[in-house]
Amino acid sequence: MIGFIGLGIMGSRMAENLVSHGFELIVYNRTKEKASELLNKGAKWAASPREVAEKSEIVFTMLSTPKVVEGVALGEDGLLNHFAEGKLWVDCSTVGPDFSIKMASEANKYGIRFLNAPVSGSKVPAANGELIFLVGGNKEDLEEVTPMLKVMGKEILYQGEVGKGSSMKLVINLMLAQSMAAFAEAVCLGEAMGLSKDIVINTLLNGATTAPFIKGKKDKLLKNDFSAEFPLEHMQKDMQLVSEAAYANNLAMPIANVTKEIYALAKQQGLDKHDFSAIYQYLTK
Amino acid sequence: MIGFIGLGIMGSRMAENLVSHGFELIVYNRTKEKASELLNKGAKWAASPREVAEKSEIVFTMLSTPKVVEGVALGEDGLLNHFAEGKLWVDCSTVGPDFSIKMASEANKYGIRFLNAPVSGSKVPAANGELIFLVGGNKEDLEEVTPMLKVMGKEILYQGEVGKGSSMKLVINLMLAQSMAAFAEAVCLGEAMGLSKDIVINTLLNGATTAPFIKGKKDKLLKNDFSAEFPLEHMQKDMQLVSEAAYANNLAMPIANVTKEIYALAKQQGLDKHDFSAIYQYLTK
Amino acid sequence: MIGFIGLGIMGSRMAENLVSHGFELIVYNRTKEKASELLNKGAKWAASPREVAEKSEIVFTMLSTPKVVEGVALGEDGLLNHFAEGKLWVDCSTVGPDFSIKMASEANKYGIRFLNAPVSGSKVPAANGELIFLVGGNKEDLEEVTPMLKVMGKEILYQGEVGKGSSMKLVINLMLAQSMAAFAEAVCLGEAMGLSKDIVINTLLNGATTAPFIKGKKDKLLKNDFSAEFPLEHMQKDMQLVSEAAYANNLAMPIANVTKEIYALAKQQGLDKHDFSAIYQYLTK
Amino acid sequence: MIGFIGLGIMGSRMAENLVSHGFELIVYNRTKEKASELLNKGAKWAASPREVAEKSEIVFTMLSTPKVVEGVALGEDGLLNHFAEGKLWVDCSTVGPDFSIKMASEANKYGIRFLNAPVSGSKVPAANGELIFLVGGNKEDLEEVTPMLKVMGKEILYQGEVGKGSSMKLVINLMLAQSMAAFAEAVCLGEAMGLSKDIVINTLLNGATTAPFIKGKKDKLLKNDFSAEFPLEHMQKDMQLVSEAAYANNLAMPIANVTKEIYALAKQQGLDKHDFSAIYQYLTK
Repeated sequence: MIGFIGLGIMGSRMAENLVSHGFELIVYNRTKEKASELLNKGAKWAASPREVAEKSEIVFTMLSTPKVVEGVALGEDGLLNHFAEGKLWVDCSTVGPDFSIKMASEANKYGIRFLNAPVSGSKVPAANGELIFLVGGNKEDLEEVTPMLKVMGKEILYQGEVGKGSSMKLVINLMLAQSMAAFAEAVCLGEAMGLSKDIVINTLLNGATTAPFIKGKKDKLLKNDFSAEFPLEHMQKDMQLVSEAAYANNLAMPIANVTKEIYALAKQQGLDKHDFSAIYQYLTK
Repeated sequence: MIGFIGLGIMGSRMAENLVSHGFELIVYNRTKEKASELLNKGAKWAASPREVAEKSEIVFTMLSTPKVVEGVALGEDGLLNHFAEGKLWVDCSTVGPDFSIKMASEANKYGIRFLNAPVSGSKVPAANGELIFLVGGNKEDLEEVTPMLKVMGKEILYQGEVGKGSSMKLVINLMLAQSMAAFAEAVCLGEAMGLSKDIVINTLLNGATTAPFIKGKKDKLLKNDFSAEFPLEHMQKDMQLVSEAAYANNLAMPIANVTKEIYALAKQQGLDKHDFSAIYQYLTK
Repeated sequence: MIGFIGLGIMGSRMAENLVSHGFELIVYNRTKEKASELLNKGAKWAASPREVAEKSEIVFTMLSTPKVVEGVALGEDGLLNHFAEGKLWVDCSTVGPDFSIKMASEANKYGIRFLNAPVSGSKVPAANGELIFLVGGNKEDLEEVTPMLKVMGKEILYQGEVGKGSSMKLVINLMLAQSMAAFAEAVCLGEAMGLSKDIVINTLLNGATTAPFIKGKKDKLLKNDFSAEFPLEHMQKDMQLVSEAAYANNLAMPIANVTKEIYALAKQQGLDKHDFSAIYQYLTK
Repeated sequence: MIGFIGLGIMGSRMAENLVSHGFELIVYNRTKEKASELLNKGAKWAASPREVAEKSEIVFTMLSTPKVVEGVALGEDGLLNHFAEGKLWVDCSTVGPDFSIKMASEANKYGIRFLNAPVSGSKVPAANGELIFLVGGNKEDLEEVTPMLKVMGKEILYQGEVGKGSSMKLVINLMLAQSMAAFAEAVCLGEAMGLSKDIVINTLLNGATTAPFIKGKKDKLLKNDFSAEFPLEHMQKDMQLVSEAAYANNLAMPIANVTKEIYALAKQQGLDKHDFSAIYQYLTK
């Protein structure tokens, strides 16, 4: 039996792919309603993380914050205290590298194996089984869960020891921030030179110079509707993490640090709750 | 009959696609040797731009610099002086928007129609008929040459009046410069945090956050071999054009201006003749 | 007799210092009213640049733009055509190095000597004889006018051949832009950390870390009254000149280029006609 | 009796000014040799911080790091445990605002008053009694020590409650970093345009656009001898503190963040142990 804890936007879709590909699943979520569809499709319900632990060989967690992960994993009724020695915990939550290393060390006290496996991709790739897993931990452990990861994702990218999955996730968010900001400036330049905004955007999206994810931002830019998918203030925070990670590792990052501050200026002028693509709104004339 | 002037790396491949798709072609190049393969495949040779003009309905030019374009088009023996009223000149050369507008006005004096049609894409897309045409000029004129553009390219993107094709090309080069520099910083960050360079590069290239053209730079980064495809000093020059175009149009571009200076620092420290992807070498620890 | 052409805010005050120190002066200005005080103090009036030229050994010009300088110097009734061979023209106007070199070459055609002598300092230093002269040209020529410069200025700083005075003026304006912007950010940081704006400003102005000219901006910052002494849009333009001069001379200037764009953002958001110290208003929360 | 703990480069000179102006002084330092000159001039020696505490009404500390301050102040034999209720501790060490607030709170537990009084100025101003005190704490406490501060410094600048002295010190170090970097770029620009380095430096130092402290860096720049007074790596660290303070307080600082990274690039290329004015060496062609 496989356990799955955390049935939010991402987790529920990931678990569905497991069930629909024939894996026997026992699930837990803070609120049971979110599990109803899964239970209809054959998943079993557990009343607590403890019950998941007692009945599974492998447990996946997909939770919102480090604090929630700790709440599920640690403590007397937590996952670790009731998961038998030698079993395997796969944490897919987005957390920092240091936190992952700490969780691995907690698991280790109980003789439990641990994989750090955050994902790149959001709602739609989660539903379609097209996530990208960024995995840190032991390679043999990864092989053991590969059949499950394969039905949830299209790529499994091994990054090294525990924590490295999370490090790679930070690099990816940096790329998101930079690509979006550079695209925004390029569209502004095109418009300033008298090109049609629509044509510039379509031309860039058809070419090889633009990150593919920006296709998903096209409507926002064309309609100047920057309702949040990934709020600008979160991106500014991630850029600060990037900047601090670079400093801690003695790396100069001149361009990233400027981009960081342009997001900060945009936030300062009231775009904090908008999607991070609202950097376009800030930079446009 | 269709005329084609300029059989360099790009032009020879474009002309071949025309011939091999059944268009009757008459070609001219400063040195005849470069035409031999085309002549074998059925193209006719012209001894001068004048002869091309006299025997063609439509003339394509694909030349290296504005000066060479002027040399071919103007003067007593030039293209314009021998091209009949109402015929159509399509210039695919990479030139500035102002120069294109000037050529259109020269053509206009002779009653000749003019299209500004620079391309995005280099040697391999040219050979495969997969260029992207960025077209400025009259829409009806574009329709007339669409059958030809379609065998040379995979996309025909109409940008507006004459000059706008060249403006769009500047926007695209900006995207190249920014994407490359951001990717370089991201790889450096990954390495600084202890990830494998190879894994970071492969992970980014497999995801949606990276501009597709960077796949073509992968080997350079992995082998630290920055032999030039597009020299860094040209990119720095194009970024200066971007900066000046932004200034002329009252647009602030904070990120582009920093990136410009990082290329300038890299140039200053001796990487000017290397490929522009050598920005990685400059930024790495 | 010494000639003086251009009696604006600066020129009238400079000429007064010459007269009040006993130099015999003949003056010309487009509008005669501005000369009345000087004429009361003993200066003679000339009806045209030509008359100034005919009656003087040395002519000073202090004019608003290169175009006005050309209007006065060139042409049939211009200064050069009526100034005898071997005489000396000292241009104190703020112009570019290239323009100064062109004027020197025009003067040379008539055998006339030329000094490029822009000033650092505005209205009050002009009145008090406390300007700083940045001189380009021949050293012997400079010695000849030193007695006059000494009554108009407190410093005479020889920079090298013609044009170098203007180059130095560009360097000084760069320092103005950078010092002001850095001071603005520092005050914002102090306020953001909970310090009193008043105290931060006074502390910085009392210390050795702040450019002395900022004392003159204190009231603007304290009262948030950014009426223009030196408009922000002019500073942004000068920063563009700095950036282009750096590019032309193969120099990377990462910090200056960012500062330039922050002025451009401030301009873009409507602060163009304010004093350049309004960069504070743009950066403050 | 007044106590003084910490007789390094700064402390020994400050203590000397107290003694030579007639204050009765008891001093302590980890190594007694550094006190010999002071003892000759009449200061008394204490064998421990405890003895200083027992015999003084007011104690000054001037120590190298927060850790050393804690070592002296806390613990069973520390200053606080033996300083009577109501007495006054003045910490002149350079520490962060949070640390100062913590020390104030520790002092408060014993009923001891606390002033946060870091200084601006180095060796020579310390010797000449020309330091600038940046004071955070209670105004009445400040009045009590004003006679002593006046013989050690030329300015006493009250910043607000405890911690604010340290906040102001961060603002001042930001100004140092920015002024130095801007000056370096300006000199590079002058040289690139063909001006003499010597003349540019002298002209700027004579004008109102340059922070006065840069006079002290003149020889370093002229001789390209960047032996450290304030090492570049410390300045880069302080700029990181600035960046983090700005982030924590929701302030965008685009120019400071770029300057920070230029120092980081210079450090990355081996200038870490040089004086921070070596930013010139990094930026020059």
